[in-house]
Amino acid sequence: MTSKNHIAGPSSGHHQEAYRGTGRRPGLISGIRPTGELHVGNYYGALKGLVDLQERYDARYFIADIHSLTTHPKPDDLRGHVVGTARNYLAGGLDPERCTLYVQSSLAAEICELHTYLSMVMPLGELMRVPTFKEKAKRHPDNVNYGLVGYPVLMAADILLFKAETVMVGDDQLVHLEIARTIARRFNQLYGNVFPEPRPLIDNAARIPSLSGAGKMSKSDGASAYISLQDDELAVEEKTRKALSDPSRVYREQPGHPTAEGCNVFHLHTFFTGEAEREQIADLCLSARIGCVECKRKLARSLSGVVEPFRQRRERLSEADTLELLRIGRDKARASARQVIAEVRQAMGLQML
Amino acid sequence: MTSKNHIAGPSSGHHQEAYRGTGRRPGLISGIRPTGELHVGNYYGALKGLVDLQERYDARYFIADIHSLTTHPKPDDLRGHVVGTARNYLAGGLDPERCTLYVQSSLAAEICELHTYLSMVMPLGELMRVPTFKEKAKRHPDNVNYGLVGYPVLMAADILLFKAETVMVGDDQLVHLEIARTIARRFNQLYGNVFPEPRPLIDNAARIPSLSGAGKMSKSDGASAYISLQDDELAVEEKTRKALSDPSRVYREQPGHPTAEGCNVFHLHTFFTGEAEREQIADLCLSARIGCVECKRKLARSLSGVVEPFRQRRERLSEADTLELLRIGRDKARASARQVIAEVRQAMGLQML
Repeated sequence: MTSKNHIAGPSSGHHQEAYRGTGRRPGLISGIRPTGELHVGNYYGALKGLVDLQERYDARYFIADIHSLTTHPKPDDLRGHVVGTARNYLAGGLDPERCTLYVQSSLAAEICELHTYLSMVMPLGELMRVPTFKEKAKRHPDNVNYGLVGYPVLMAADILLFKAETVMVGDDQLVHLEIARTIARRFNQLYGNVFPEPRPLIDNAARIPSLSGAGKMSKSDGASAYISLQDDELAVEEKTRKALSDPSRVYREQPGHPTAEGCNVFHLHTFFTGEAEREQIADLCLSARIGCVECKRKLARSLSGVVEPFRQRRERLSEADTLELLRIGRDKARASARQVIAEVRQAMGLQML
Repeated sequence: MTSKNHIAGPSSGHHQEAYRGTGRRPGLISGIRPTGELHVGNYYGALKGLVDLQERYDARYFIADIHSLTTHPKPDDLRGHVVGTARNYLAGGLDPERCTLYVQSSLAAEICELHTYLSMVMPLGELMRVPTFKEKAKRHPDNVNYGLVGYPVLMAADILLFKAETVMVGDDQLVHLEIARTIARRFNQLYGNVFPEPRPLIDNAARIPSLSGAGKMSKSDGASAYISLQDDELAVEEKTRKALSDPSRVYREQPGHPTAEGCNVFHLHTFFTGEAEREQIADLCLSARIGCVECKRKLARSLSGVVEPFRQRRERLSEADTLELLRIGRDKARASARQVIAEVRQAMGLQML
């Protein structure tokens, strides 16, 4: 594997200090969208951070299939994506011995029960002022369903069900986390001190550039613009060969501009190629002793160093194994969730039959 | 017991025809508000109808404690009211052998899960135009929570969880039932034919007049205006003695006006006193051979004929027995609810782990 020195992990900070020497790791939760294949941008954008955090936190990761229902995915697609996503994340390094990985709907009873109770304490007006809601409502005015405006309430249930102290979120989810904090506070005011207010751990994931040089790597730009984690070595080499390099270096004899800004291929090297080799490449490029074709071949090797081990681990993991690991995760998560549900019912005065 | 000839039961009708000769009773559901004590107005207003229906329908009745959370009742009050209400309804004639009586929150996992899924198919705009919501939002602008606007969605979950074909509702709930029908239709359009569209059975319950003569019997007019089902014979006599009778009959020697419109006490007789005795009373009153004091004593006896058996049955039913009967109801309801949940998950493409 190549060195990952240059990949920024999630910013940790004060959350862990209170736990030093206690043997207990602080609780963390994060949701994973059920999508199809992953590309190397996702690997560093989402997966790598979760893999790192499972060492330092008592981490729970869930595949957010209930959330995805707001847009009514085709049932077969959803089913396939959930297992596929779990398989990808396990292949990418989530370790069921260290973290708890489960499918959101496998805890539907507990999550939805808490969601319904929390819906009774969250003002509707504040939900309707959430920017992501307003934006979605504007883009899809024909599909503004009750569940869509309640997205942050369901997210609060995901978090509070485990009394998670820390939530790994992207910048765009900070408003939702603020609502989860509001809900925890309101609930505690009405029914006693049940929930801690969860704090964000901002996901400072690296933004891997597209092979085309146009912004961030993304599946929406077509298969030639990204390296899929399922691409074999040949596909990786083919795609990398066509990647945009330094547009100002027209002839082989010209020196290149081996910086993140000067050359898209070199920018990709900064993420995937170890420092020593990268310095050597920069040196050779500056003195025109290496051409773009050769430089891209080196990048393809670096990329394969990430993709191949992933691809092989993924192939070794059968669908049956994946489902079994998800069942183990469900059982672990459910045990602690049920304790919180019992405490919530007690606090609200619901009859314990 | 006095004759109840004059008490109008719920309007049945076409719902049952399809089941004639099949041995199967059509499914019916109705919610019961968890309140404190009942009065004889409630007995005929809510309870009696449910008792009659359990013979003709496969009836499920639930104490709607989750719904009541929108107004944040004190936890101890809620706990007490739920058991008290169950005890009252059992004492009033709900028979756990004939119907299924359960507490809504004892099926919270199943109801709230379905509620969350249904929230994804119900347009927010339509919910916000529901008159009862608009009215509540106007009266309590500081407590317009997300759950309040979702009240009809939770009600739809109560109903659809059992694929109930018939729902006994008051006139004021017809709009909510229409939303449950809309949700069933939308769900079926998206995910295949899962839910029948429930039909209303309008609760034509008798409106028992207040002892004070001012409108319908209600607890909000103070204890002297209603006969509680927990009043003993002395209290019933005391309260009846002070009831408003014919205001135009000032002297004992004047003839009275023994009609529902002419005399409040006679109006009460039409509900609680058998036809033969009532005709005799009318006759005596018209010829001034009976005074209001004696007539009220007769009414008190009739009222006690309803209240006493209830009170005694209630006293024989311990809290522990009540809880045990609620557990039996929960288990019966849960078994069929879980089948529907499994079918819904399958239809939406949620992973069956």
